[in-house]
Amino acid sequence: MATDDDRKFMKIALEEAQKGYDEGGIPIGSVLVSSTGEILGRGHNMRIQKGSATLHAEISALENAGRLPAMRYRDATIYTTLSPCTMCTGAILLYGIPRVVIGENRTFLGAEDWLAAKGVQVINLDDESCYGLMQMFVKERPGDWNEDIGEEAKAV
Amino acid sequence: MATDDDRKFMKIALEEAQKGYDEGGIPIGSVLVSSTGEILGRGHNMRIQKGSATLHAEISALENAGRLPAMRYRDATIYTTLSPCTMCTGAILLYGIPRVVIGENRTFLGAEDWLAAKGVQVINLDDESCYGLMQMFVKERPGDWNEDIGEEAKAV
Repeated sequence: MATDDDRKFMKIALEEAQKGYDEGGIPIGSVLVSSTGEILGRGHNMRIQKGSATLHAEISALENAGRLPAMRYRDATIYTTLSPCTMCTGAILLYGIPRVVIGENRTFLGAEDWLAAKGVQVINLDDESCYGLMQMFVKERPGDWNEDIGEEAKAV
Repeated sequence: MATDDDRKFMKIALEEAQKGYDEGGIPIGSVLVSSTGEILGRGHNMRIQKGSATLHAEISALENAGRLPAMRYRDATIYTTLSPCTMCTGAILLYGIPRVVIGENRTFLGAEDWLAAKGVQVINLDDESCYGLMQMFVKERPGDWNEDIGEEAKAV
């Protein structure tokens, strides 16, 4: 079940997404938070800004958290404004993060079934602000979006 | 089936792994190669060197390849000296890379079952040089190795 804290941290993830959009990037944000509410790392998608094929929002948040001992991930929650792709899902499973809170999965449905199969708790807030920002971006720049999810550019 | 080219490119992945070891890092290397034999990206694990939780060898190779259109991945082969973890497997699936050549999976067995389930061709060379380098490292620095795969440090 979503808590007030979940909505608070999703707002921070959305701030990251907005920062990405303002930089001309893909507006997806993420925050890694300990069970005591400490922000361990936050970040946003850097494909455009850094010419990066791997710095999705979740990967950026994990990267910005730096090197952590395994136990630090084991009671953490990762917030992401958009349902995580297979790479980000794999990273969540690698570090044994037990709880994922998602802004929305209407724009893109990632590997939530893998998370569920491994016993990770997945909470979808179906947040209109997360959805609205992504929808605006996808309409504005479908080529950049498709590239980010490994798809060929489609006619619009 | 492994080809002469596969052995040639695994040698380059192993050079990357050795470079990582010489830098004081975790000795895993990777190369992304097009179907015409063009090296699109190469790299090695950077956990120690960059304090990075996400720059595994395969992620480094993808990152160093930069932004590529989807079609560039679709006939490529990724070489990695060690069986890919869930994160790297997820990245391979994200970009639809159809073929993975692995140095060895005795030190660590990654998510090869996910690759197979998605129709990705997985070839294990069971290379003694890849295995020997990793075994030496794991014995020397088990803490760094366990941290990299999201495990608690174990007594040795």
